[in-house]
Amino acid sequence: MMIAVESFLLDPLQEGTLQHRIRQMVAEGILSGRLRAGERMPSSRKLALHLGVSRLTVTLAYAELVADDYLHAEGRSGYFVSRTAPQPGKTQPRPNTKPSTVDWARMLGHRPPSGDLNRGKPRNWREFSYPFIYGQADPSLFDHANWRLCMMQSLGLKDFDRMSDDQFEQDDPGLLEYIARHSLPRRGILARPDEILVTLGAQNALWLAAQLLLNQRRSAVIEEPGYPGLRDILTQTRCRMVPVAIGPRGLQAADLPPHPDVVFCTPSHHCPTGATMPLEARHDLLRAAQEQEFLIVEDDYEFEIAQGRAPLPALKSLDPSGRVIHVGSFSKSLFPGLRLGFMVGPAPFIAEARALRATVLRHPPGLLQRAAALFLSLGHYDVMLRRLSRSFAARREVMLAAISAEGLMIANAVENGGSSIWMRAPDGVSATALTEALKPQGVLIERGLPFFGATDAPDNFYRIAYSSIPSERIPEGITRIARTLKTLQP
Amino acid sequence: MMIAVESFLLDPLQEGTLQHRIRQMVAEGILSGRLRAGERMPSSRKLALHLGVSRLTVTLAYAELVADDYLHAEGRSGYFVSRTAPQPGKTQPRPNTKPSTVDWARMLGHRPPSGDLNRGKPRNWREFSYPFIYGQADPSLFDHANWRLCMMQSLGLKDFDRMSDDQFEQDDPGLLEYIARHSLPRRGILARPDEILVTLGAQNALWLAAQLLLNQRRSAVIEEPGYPGLRDILTQTRCRMVPVAIGPRGLQAADLPPHPDVVFCTPSHHCPTGATMPLEARHDLLRAAQEQEFLIVEDDYEFEIAQGRAPLPALKSLDPSGRVIHVGSFSKSLFPGLRLGFMVGPAPFIAEARALRATVLRHPPGLLQRAAALFLSLGHYDVMLRRLSRSFAARREVMLAAISAEGLMIANAVENGGSSIWMRAPDGVSATALTEALKPQGVLIERGLPFFGATDAPDNFYRIAYSSIPSERIPEGITRIARTLKTLQP
Repeated sequence: MMIAVESFLLDPLQEGTLQHRIRQMVAEGILSGRLRAGERMPSSRKLALHLGVSRLTVTLAYAELVADDYLHAEGRSGYFVSRTAPQPGKTQPRPNTKPSTVDWARMLGHRPPSGDLNRGKPRNWREFSYPFIYGQADPSLFDHANWRLCMMQSLGLKDFDRMSDDQFEQDDPGLLEYIARHSLPRRGILARPDEILVTLGAQNALWLAAQLLLNQRRSAVIEEPGYPGLRDILTQTRCRMVPVAIGPRGLQAADLPPHPDVVFCTPSHHCPTGATMPLEARHDLLRAAQEQEFLIVEDDYEFEIAQGRAPLPALKSLDPSGRVIHVGSFSKSLFPGLRLGFMVGPAPFIAEARALRATVLRHPPGLLQRAAALFLSLGHYDVMLRRLSRSFAARREVMLAAISAEGLMIANAVENGGSSIWMRAPDGVSATALTEALKPQGVLIERGLPFFGATDAPDNFYRIAYSSIPSERIPEGITRIARTLKTLQP
Repeated sequence: MMIAVESFLLDPLQEGTLQHRIRQMVAEGILSGRLRAGERMPSSRKLALHLGVSRLTVTLAYAELVADDYLHAEGRSGYFVSRTAPQPGKTQPRPNTKPSTVDWARMLGHRPPSGDLNRGKPRNWREFSYPFIYGQADPSLFDHANWRLCMMQSLGLKDFDRMSDDQFEQDDPGLLEYIARHSLPRRGILARPDEILVTLGAQNALWLAAQLLLNQRRSAVIEEPGYPGLRDILTQTRCRMVPVAIGPRGLQAADLPPHPDVVFCTPSHHCPTGATMPLEARHDLLRAAQEQEFLIVEDDYEFEIAQGRAPLPALKSLDPSGRVIHVGSFSKSLFPGLRLGFMVGPAPFIAEARALRATVLRHPPGLLQRAAALFLSLGHYDVMLRRLSRSFAARREVMLAAISAEGLMIANAVENGGSSIWMRAPDGVSATALTEALKPQGVLIERGLPFFGATDAPDNFYRIAYSSIPSERIPEGITRIARTLKTLQP
């Protein structure tokens, strides 16, 4: 590889002759690991021109570097970083950047340490033989060929402006239309384009809603257990968080504290238990919202892969007074790395959310919006959803059979599909210990503790998902869980 | 097109027989514009199965719809939305969503109206013959073929996990490496991977920095005139904003208020005037930062397309005490729709920025990070940068010649390239009026007013960029500006 001449810049603070400073610059580049053995240096002519020094100065500096074996010359073809050059140290020297003398704890306002951002989900989950991991895409179910075709089409010159332009505030019209005409009607929702905003995934939609609706003086109801990413979002708003315990019928209006400002919930599949809120409970909640004048943020994160008969209509579709903000995501049905979701709400709210989005990140990348719009509107998505549903239903059968055969305990009986099961370990067994004990056996499960906000939450729940594990692996994985549970029992 | 059966959902609130409700559901779909003439309905069997009703019920509802000409039957091939079906009204009926009764002004905390998010830049700028627009990509300079190849490679099955996974907190290692080894050294900066964060464009980087470093009790210095997107960001933090007037040598330490908390600046090319901060001024600013213990956020938004000799080293590279947060962007050199930028700072700061990014949006889409990493590391980027630089230098020559020939006034003489020129209209001429008067003539310029924070700011500046206009169009465009200026002179 040829090292670009532009990557050389003399340190104007450094003392010494030009020749010495050039020598130093190259040696430091090699010692810091930036310039690597075998890479080709710019010619002395080019470097001299770039730095605005005489060619002789560079030639002399290069000669010194050759003498010290930093570089070696290869006849007429130029100078290369020597394969026997002094090695970068283990602790890389960093000549230009001195350690920061800033009191970061004070500057950052004593924020709590960021902690484990991936909540114990190992990045190398694909290396596990029994990955009961939740929320990642399964390459064997994804329609890779058609996704590539749609990306290719979006990359066409015809669509250059859609891909390349700063789109300011507008979303891809094709994607908006698909969401309005196809995604939302499946949930019983009709919405105009000015009631829909495309977001960088559902996380981004929840964040925008929380930012706009909450502050230190307001209160938010969250489900307990619930989605940990939401707890992070609400912590940032400094609102008062009121956890409400969730049973097998999801959030119940009767359990709400008096006069909350915003209620966050996952009615179609409660996260993480999978409970579905029955129709009457939805009406109760909406009635309470109207009477007590609170708003509801409905996270419908997994609706597309509900199995079986038509799902219950979304809260948003039953909403008589425009009090529901509906959040959807393509992360579970397409893939999470795409980072595309959407929110639906009354136009004045969506207008503010759009303005906030513009301040924070301008807009979700046009190319991905375009490609997703094509993939959806050409019908590939529907076909894939059916495949996902069939596959998940089949895997679920195998899961339930294996769970029953091994006598494991399901914490929450769920009728309506999804892609995971919420489990309970026997009394006295720590799910954290179980999770750790299973890892060396190639089994990846998710402990339940991070879903709870309470500091004294029970450590005997765990989640096992079937969105990324093939059916034939499931029985052995469940067997290993059962076997390990026995060894942990007191 | 076949309408997916899943997009039909009975409104459980609706009264009447099942047959009546199905009829209503379809008719409303047509009247709302969701179901369109010629589209094919699901078979009665499928719809019955999906809704959990008898097939006869659906058949009878369909028969009614045919009688009313909402649908028409085509022998054995099924039911279609009739081409002569009742038309959707101008104001689309929205049966399921009632108008919001929420007091949004109160709920949103009396936010100021969002205003014009694209700051008067028309979305149809490509239709102008003389688009002196700033900051959009020029398809004639972009290396489209290689970008497509890099996207294709990133879309390969081999990279499925990089594209599809929820990457939690980590950035693409290839992109990080390129930034560390090639982008930053060009600015004299050496940084480790834990000192770099990939962001959703420079806007997102500035937003993250402002969120972490500012609050109601802190003050921020901004350049006047300056980048309006930054003003939006700072408004959101509720910090005290202190504007400092910018002359031809950029921000001067002597002009700073006492003890600010954070200073935002654009030393390499001041936005919008293009002024470059001389080396001594950089050292002065850094000295002041150390003495008064403030931080500096350096927005190096346009460094890659500096023309001529090696640019001055970034503030960050001269920073003796780790007080500079450096923000870079690929928007100007690749394209803004890509939404990729980065920030460089001390590790404790970057760790917090990463955690905040995860809460707000998780991570920039993996696919785009991967494709950009390939495009950069395969050297296509360097070749393209040289083409951009050559092209912009040539266009600049033509601009300066035409400006001089027409006797227009440059507001700020700039030596070091960039992609725009900051102009001054004669006394008494409003640049807003000029901008509007030029539009019907196919000439697009940008008025200067939005760059000022002061309410009594002068309205006689404008910006003309040459990043999206071919050389041969420039002289006529400048001539039209000059001619129009004359008609506006008092």
